[in-house]
Amino acid sequence: MTAKVSARRLKGFQDYQPATMALRYHLMDIVRKEGAQAGFQAIGTPALEYAEVLLGVGGETDKQVFRFRDNGERDVALRFDLTVPFARFVAEHQGNLHFPFKRLQIGDVWRAEKPQKGRYREFCQCDLDIVGVNSVEADIEILGCFLNILHMMDIGPFTMVLGHRVLLSHILQKTLGALNPELEQQALIIIDKLAKIGPAAVTELLQQLPCPTPAGAATLVTLLCAQADESSSLESLEALLVGDHAAEQCLADLRETLAIVSSLAADKRGKIRFDLSIARGLGYYTGLVFETILDQLPSIGSICSGGRYNRLVERYLNRELAGIGGSIGLDRLVMALQEVQSPLLEASKSQVVFVALATKDARAYAFSLVQKLRQAGLAADIALNTQKLSQQFKHADRMAYPFVLTVGSEELEKQTVSCKNMLTGQEDKGLSWEKALTLLQDSLKTL
Amino acid sequence: MTAKVSARRLKGFQDYQPATMALRYHLMDIVRKEGAQAGFQAIGTPALEYAEVLLGVGGETDKQVFRFRDNGERDVALRFDLTVPFARFVAEHQGNLHFPFKRLQIGDVWRAEKPQKGRYREFCQCDLDIVGVNSVEADIEILGCFLNILHMMDIGPFTMVLGHRVLLSHILQKTLGALNPELEQQALIIIDKLAKIGPAAVTELLQQLPCPTPAGAATLVTLLCAQADESSSLESLEALLVGDHAAEQCLADLRETLAIVSSLAADKRGKIRFDLSIARGLGYYTGLVFETILDQLPSIGSICSGGRYNRLVERYLNRELAGIGGSIGLDRLVMALQEVQSPLLEASKSQVVFVALATKDARAYAFSLVQKLRQAGLAADIALNTQKLSQQFKHADRMAYPFVLTVGSEELEKQTVSCKNMLTGQEDKGLSWEKALTLLQDSLKTL
Repeated sequence: MTAKVSARRLKGFQDYQPATMALRYHLMDIVRKEGAQAGFQAIGTPALEYAEVLLGVGGETDKQVFRFRDNGERDVALRFDLTVPFARFVAEHQGNLHFPFKRLQIGDVWRAEKPQKGRYREFCQCDLDIVGVNSVEADIEILGCFLNILHMMDIGPFTMVLGHRVLLSHILQKTLGALNPELEQQALIIIDKLAKIGPAAVTELLQQLPCPTPAGAATLVTLLCAQADESSSLESLEALLVGDHAAEQCLADLRETLAIVSSLAADKRGKIRFDLSIARGLGYYTGLVFETILDQLPSIGSICSGGRYNRLVERYLNRELAGIGGSIGLDRLVMALQEVQSPLLEASKSQVVFVALATKDARAYAFSLVQKLRQAGLAADIALNTQKLSQQFKHADRMAYPFVLTVGSEELEKQTVSCKNMLTGQEDKGLSWEKALTLLQDSLKTL
Repeated sequence: MTAKVSARRLKGFQDYQPATMALRYHLMDIVRKEGAQAGFQAIGTPALEYAEVLLGVGGETDKQVFRFRDNGERDVALRFDLTVPFARFVAEHQGNLHFPFKRLQIGDVWRAEKPQKGRYREFCQCDLDIVGVNSVEADIEILGCFLNILHMMDIGPFTMVLGHRVLLSHILQKTLGALNPELEQQALIIIDKLAKIGPAAVTELLQQLPCPTPAGAATLVTLLCAQADESSSLESLEALLVGDHAAEQCLADLRETLAIVSSLAADKRGKIRFDLSIARGLGYYTGLVFETILDQLPSIGSICSGGRYNRLVERYLNRELAGIGGSIGLDRLVMALQEVQSPLLEASKSQVVFVALATKDARAYAFSLVQKLRQAGLAADIALNTQKLSQQFKHADRMAYPFVLTVGSEELEKQTVSCKNMLTGQEDKGLSWEKALTLLQDSLKTL
């Protein structure tokens, strides 16, 4: 027998083994439960969209999109996030949605990035958004809900860091001079790399941009670094923005947002702080932006990010619909939990009862027992190999099943079962079904 | 303001609105719960694979695959089912898996088919498989588990129809003469269309194949139609296969499988029967195959199908690993439930408590109340628009929220709330938090 095809997998794409998948589902279930409790409604959108729907929103995403011509020669692409398709969804279905619309979505996205630790070409995002309103309340609700979800996930201490595109834009103008939107976007992409490549490299890259006052780059970077360090950064900003009414209002709103979210986080494992240098690489943000860092593993990058996008929906609609939202990067988070050997990864003890088959004539009897066990709410597996009984026990042992019920000719005739506790070795023969069930229920409770 | 991009969606690709998504999650959760209870372990594999991994398994799938060159010029394709990638998964990770391995997987698949009722280009499959064993027990376990899951889904009466590739192959040889594998595959694809295009068209297509005895096509089709009609079809087959030992063993196993699965289904809404004409279009099946028809809507096609694939894993591995499995076609099922106006689609009554904000100074107080409600296990939403109170109540009404708590300056000062029952109109003012919570908990219970 010869393998005809190599069992290889694409770089940057993962298989999820049962232990990892169980953790992923556990985390997704928390998002669904807490999201529903906060009035978010789950929706779904396709993995594949017309390329024009996804492309051209700014930032570095266009280069990273899996794009191709389908069998009908349509120019299509795999979604690189859940936000841009959601804007298309809102535009398409606006007549059927009640605004403000709170959406929850969990789904895979694809980016043709260079794979590295915590960065995959396929990964799952868990998104919450509020569309149809531009308010401090909506900002607080999004941040508060993500804080709560990450707290409920029990992933250890974390810090949510807020930035603001409008404030950053004002500071850019004060240092680099007036920038057109394209140039500002380029500056933002460079600033977004601050944590990764450091202040010197960022300064150098900024100086290479055709800005009115490139020499302001050094001042800007010094300011950004000071902002990131200081806890009182909002105060120091205030002085710089005095007299600029729009910026002052942003600051006031931000101050209230921070105060209320901090109080909501008081008994939680997450902290919140401001850092002007948080820019986010995506082009569609227009106000508040945020990232979330695991205190134990900051190097992995943000595990929950987002921001306000007040002009995204109008790409697809002759109407302005403001939005704010964010994503938990599920697979980066799982990777981080593996890295810090989180207790979340410890396998829970198996509760599965195994039914072994001593003689073939008891086959139907064995299946009826398995069905009864499952109907009684217990997890149950059955011998699928007509092997020797010793082999069946070996399988149960390898699977760490705590109990084995054995049935054969004798048990079939008397309508009984034998029950072995695999942890203690204790074996009870000739039990009635009722007795066996009580024994199992009582013993499984104390496992 | 002008839309720059049309909000259009690809043909055959669906958006899922909240009501539909809630039903999809409800059904997926049943698969996960019942699957886990039967000892199946959830895994995940990528949407995208090397094209050579997916292609060439036979049947009509190669034509229907979304295939393209990625940015690195790799020849890649979107998975068209979850079975072929699973065979790759098993081959790649065989050293870490305990066999028999029972897998559960829920995921989207893509097929560039002509979209029509119940047929989409993107749809979700819920798969159960047992790999590493070729036994009657494994066949019974797969069929029994799907029967149980479909029963638990409460989708109305259904019928699971079994066929068998080995038996069908024997009958093909007796009627059309000895066929090479390619020719047999072509004959199977034609036979698979029997229900859709009728006996005359199938006979004609079979006669056009270069078989040794094309005249046998009429006999074959008559036999297949008789098989589909008769309840005693297994008996009539027996006479035809006398003396052919392998076929006789298949028949004996099938008879026991049918008997045991029927007894497991005794108190369930699913029936099971044999129909030799069930061929399945996929090329990788080697034994038992099955389809499942909704008794109320047979025209929509099978909503749960699969079969035994004993030679699929060896495409990727120098070792034989037998397998059997199947998929629930979730989106076709949802479509069918919509078509028959299933009670499952009736929206459950909203349990969400809405917190309205009379004056801005109570913002932090309102958020602290929302958090307390959620922590007490209630679902709660908050006014996100700083609109007039009447507008906020209008939103609560549109969302069918049963209770509104209002807070403003007065409530903030006295640390109370006003509570309005939106169904009865009853309003209680000046309630303490404790009183309000008790009132809500009691009232929501009786909704």
